[in-house]
Order: sequence, then C-alpha cells, then structure tokens
Amino acid sequence: MSWEDGIWKGVPYTPGEQPKRDNLIKLNTNECPYPPAPGVEKKLKEMEFGRFRLYPDPEASSLVDALSGYYHVPSDQIFVGIGSDDVLAMAFLTFFRNGREILFPNITYSFYDVWANLYNIPFRQIPLKEDFSIDPSDYKRENGGVVIANPNAPTSLFMPLSGIREILDANRESVVIVDEAYIDFGGETALPLIDEYENLLVVRTFSKSRAMAGMRIGYAFGSKKLIGYLQDAKFSFNSYTMNMPSLELGVEAVKDDAYFKEVCGKIVATRDRVAEELKALGFTMPKSSTNFLFASHEKVPAKELFEAMKKEGILVRFFDKPILNRYLRITIGTDEQMDTMITFLKGYLASK
Amino acid sequence: MSWEDGIWKGVPYTPGEQPKRDNLIKLNTNECPYPPAPGVEKKLKEMEFGRFRLYPDPEASSLVDALSGYYHVPSDQIFVGIGSDDVLAMAFLTFFRNGREILFPNITYSFYDVWANLYNIPFRQIPLKEDFSIDPSDYKRENGGVVIANPNAPTSLFMPLSGIREILDANRESVVIVDEAYIDFGGETALPLIDEYENLLVVRTFSKSRAMAGMRIGYAFGSKKLIGYLQDAKFSFNSYTMNMPSLELGVEAVKDDAYFKEVCGKIVATRDRVAEELKALGFTMPKSSTNFLFASHEKVPAKELFEAMKKEGILVRFFDKPILNRYLRITIGTDEQMDTMITFLKGYLASK
Repeated sequence: MSWEDGIWKGVPYTPGEQPKRDNLIKLNTNECPYPPAPGVEKKLKEMEFGRFRLYPDPEASSLVDALSGYYHVPSDQIFVGIGSDDVLAMAFLTFFRNGREILFPNITYSFYDVWANLYNIPFRQIPLKEDFSIDPSDYKRENGGVVIANPNAPTSLFMPLSGIREILDANRESVVIVDEAYIDFGGETALPLIDEYENLLVVRTFSKSRAMAGMRIGYAFGSKKLIGYLQDAKFSFNSYTMNMPSLELGVEAVKDDAYFKEVCGKIVATRDRVAEELKALGFTMPKSSTNFLFASHEKVPAKELFEAMKKEGILVRFFDKPILNRYLRITIGTDEQMDTMITFLKGYLASK
Repeated sequence: MSWEDGIWKGVPYTPGEQPKRDNLIKLNTNECPYPPAPGVEKKLKEMEFGRFRLYPDPEASSLVDALSGYYHVPSDQIFVGIGSDDVLAMAFLTFFRNGREILFPNITYSFYDVWANLYNIPFRQIPLKEDFSIDPSDYKRENGGVVIANPNAPTSLFMPLSGIREILDANRESVVIVDEAYIDFGGETALPLIDEYENLLVVRTFSKSRAMAGMRIGYAFGSKKLIGYLQDAKFSFNSYTMNMPSLELGVEAVKDDAYFKEVCGKIVATRDRVAEELKALGFTMPKSSTNFLFASHEKVPAKELFEAMKKEGILVRFFDKPILNRYLRITIGTDEQMDTMITFLKGYLASK
C-alpha cells in the first residue's frame, strides 16, 4: 500500500496561454479588449487598505445586492464565485450526485468533462449536428443533469430560447445548467425561465463583457431552493471565497450600465465587420453570438495559420482535436488589433 | 424522482460573525489587529488597472516565487489558494479518496468534518487528552489520511515536533496534513520534514500573521510529487484561483520581513501579558502558541461572559458545544483593545 493510492489522478483543463511577453495581440482567451468601467479604477485608488486585515463579508452581500438590483432578481436567488469556473465547479459538486450520467455536447466548453472526472460523475457527450447546432431532442433521455453553454463555445453559436425550454420541459427530474458566459454579446438569456423551472441554474461571468477577467468574478441565478443548496456546498468548501477587492470593484463594474453597453456594442460591431472581412478572405464560420469567431479557411490548415500568426505576435486559440483542428478561435480585439490581423492574413494568404 | 435527489445536502461550516457595525472590538475571528505591511498599501495605489481585463497568471508564479525565496523551498513544492480553507478543501478532495477513514482530533478546526462530509470521506474524530493535548499514539491505526492543526484550534496548544514526527513515522501509507495557520505565533514548524516525508503537506495562511484575511491567500508546502497532485486537482477545478490583487499584494506582504516579525512579536507580547492578567481574574487556559487565548473562568459560565462582552461591544468567540462551551476564544487585539476588555471583565466579575 502506498500514500499515493488514495489520490485523485486525472488530466486537468488546459487554459489558453497567458504569455508573459507584453507586445502581443492577444486574441486567445476571449478577454475584453477594453478596460473595466472607470468607476472601478476610481474605487481601486480609494480602497480602504486598513480593512484588508479583516475577513471579507462571507455572504458577498454588496456584490449580490448590486447584481440583484441590476437584473431584478432577489438576492437569495443569486450565487457568486471566483469566476464562472468556480460557480460551475461548485454546481457540479453540489448537483450531480445521483450516479446517473450527466449530458452535455461533445463540442463545448472543455472544462465540463474535467469537472465530471474530478468528482467521478459519469457523463455522456452528445454529438452536435453537422452545422454545430445543438438538437434539443438529444437531451430527452434519462440523465443525472444537463449542461448547455449558450451561446456555445468554441462554436460561437446560439440556440434559440425555445430549444432551452424544450430541454427544460424534458428534464424536470435533474438540474439543468445553462452557461451564459457569452450571453452579453448575443442571443436571448434563459434568466426569466428561473421563475418557471426550479431546477434551472443560469451561470454568468465578469471575465468577458465586464472586462474583469483579472478579478475572477462569476455569478449564477436560480430558484431560491437551488441557490440555497449551492450556498450550503459553498459554505462547506470555503466560507470566504470573494476577496475584498473583487467585492468592491465588482460592485463598481455593475453600477456603470452605460459603459457596459458601450463596450458590448463596440465588440459586437467589430465582430460583425471582421466576420465579413474574413469571409472575403476565404474563411467560413458559424454566425457568432459571442466575443469570438470560430473560423476555418477553405484552403490553408488552421494549425498553419495559428503558427504563422503566433510568429507575427498575433495569438489566437487552436484546439488540436478532431473537427476543432480545422478552426481557429479568434477573440474580438479592438478595431486596430483586428485590422492588423486582417492585414497580416491578407498578405499571408496572397503569398500561398 | 425529483431534481433534488442528486443534490448534496449537508450542514455547512459556520464562520465567526462578520458584523457590519464599525465600533466593535472584534476579537472573534483571529484576525490581525494591525494593518498589512506598508508596501501592500503602496502597491494598491500603483496597481495597473488596465490589466484587470486580462486573466491572472494561472500558475500564480510571482507569489509562489516570493514564498519560495522567503522559505527556501523550490517553487514546485509550493501550492497557493484562496485562503488556507481553499488549500485544505482542495487537499481533502485530492488526497482522501481511498474510502478509508481519515483521522483528526475531536476538538480542532471545525471545518475538517465539514469537508469530509462534503466529499463523502469517512472520518474518525479522536478525543484529545484531558489537558487538550494530542497523543501521537492515537494516530497509529489504519487510516486514509491524518489531519493535525498545530498549534491546534481553538485550544491554542502546540504539539512538539517530535509528536508530529511520531505521527509521520506511523503513517507512511496515507497523506498527513499539518495545518499551521497559527505557527507564526509559536511552536516549531514541520516545514523541514517535507524533505523526509513525501506524504506530508504543511498548510499556512496570510490571514493571521500577515494581516491579509481580506485578500484570501493560503499556501502549502510538500514534496514535488504531492504538490503536483494538488496542482492537477486545482487545475481541474478552477484554472485561475488567485486574482490579480491577491497575487500582487501578496508578494508585497512577503517582501517586508521586518514588519512581519514586528507584528508577530507585538501580538505574542500582548498575548502573554493578557494571559497573566486573565489568570489574575480567575481564568484558566492552556498555554497559547497562537494569536488567541482559550480561556475559562472558574466561576462565571463562558456563555454569560460572551453575552455580557457582546453587549459591551467586545466580540469574542463562543462555541455552543460540549466541553468547548466552558471556554471563550479571545483573539489578541491591540494592547489598547485588550486593556478595554480587561477593564470590563474586572468590573463585571467584581459585580458578581
């Protein structure tokens, strides 16, 4: 017998590269190209240093209440965590314990199977349709839970709310998670459905549309009962998850709605323009409802483009897996960054 | 069948109250009465706001390297998390999976059994001796892991390193965690033993001696192999646990060794003085190696004192459980705060 016998051994999730060089056009982790709201900077300068010696509010009330006010959802139906990854990690740990298979698409956020493995949750990955869309009728089989990213990643495609509703109607006996990390860039949120479906958890993040990836803030909405279970597990894991800066700066980000909408609008406009320009260069892609494009070139392999761009200091995401390896996932940067990328691709493709 | 069938239901840990009133003498959660190192404040003002839009370094290299330099432990033998609670929560999840009972004292940090319940880890709580000390020979039975807080809480007692070594020698086949949240206030660290025992994890926190409870920073030392397993689980849970402020401000706290030692020294001096004054008032207590006293009055019940002090705006911790309910856990505050408390107790006890 060895001390290593009882240890969990598995393959962790691989996040996109966070290079330490500075002069890169970084389009590989779906970060926001614009800074957080100006109020966040102001608050940073005014933060009460002396209070750092005290534990933060374990209930994260200030942040929860700010989200409650903004989204018109009672505070006891809101959960916050250290990025949506933490929210999802806690949700998997809390909700999927009946030993039945949970269901999610075969092409989706690649952390879902990692969490399932971490907790020994059996799972089934359901193939997307040829056009990368999700067929709701695939989720009408016995299961221990359902997880749908909507819009989905890395496909960038949105499933109409009628599809989400169809999945919910077929799954009254297990928890359904809708991961809306990208919802602020398109599509229709499932948020209003939490009043109808007690078993629905809608998960969000500050990392994309609120430009706060560095602060690690995620949140979720659900019925009072569902959120209550999640809170019990969270308070059985770590009483104080959100540190003082994330609470105080998170509130400021929520306050500035005009800035939030301006940033989302700019990204969507850039995305739609760049999509057209890429098509003109011979790329095809699903219609994006996110802050990235999932693009495949008709002639040049994605891996080759990925490497050529990287050499040029333009970092995009390439997944070395079947099907996905025909595509690049390109985060929408500033107009200037995208122009640099388009200019490079134009030249590179012309030289082929 | 109901959607609630697969849900984990359990009783969470109850942290000490974080009251929202300001004019309290707060001696209930073992926080540091002094602010963090001055360099932390300086860095806070200089922090690059624009970088918040980017994900933080998932490896937390700057903080890990700072700890590596300070403690002379290679970086690949150091793990960091969101407070020592996060480190311990990940350690329980990673290490105790063989279905065998893990062992810890019946009176100790009351989060251990909560984590065990959260992950369905069987456990056995081993009674302390009459004088609250831990008998190492009690840990020489088959087990799936051992967890010892040293110094222990809320007893404040330190077990000599020979006892830790005795436990390690008897437990080559499971992981042994030594939780050293309070080690900077007394006792001898097990840190050097990580070179001898591949299965030893030594856990620490910035919340007490480094006055950073509000930032949520914990860390742990172990063999390269042990830390590697912990990293794999962490990267299967949340890629980016430490946000930018905790990384940047944590480094500053480690840098200022003189301040750190001054703060610890002041707290130890206050503690030892206050212990004598409490004894003169009829209290008894184990000899503390921590930043708190675990004190029982010869005549007046702890609960009565707790309530009287609370009414006076002096908040200490009272555990309403057998044995523990004879004691108050009193965090060491500033000299001034402790004088106010002593004066109040003197008056209250004289009036009895």
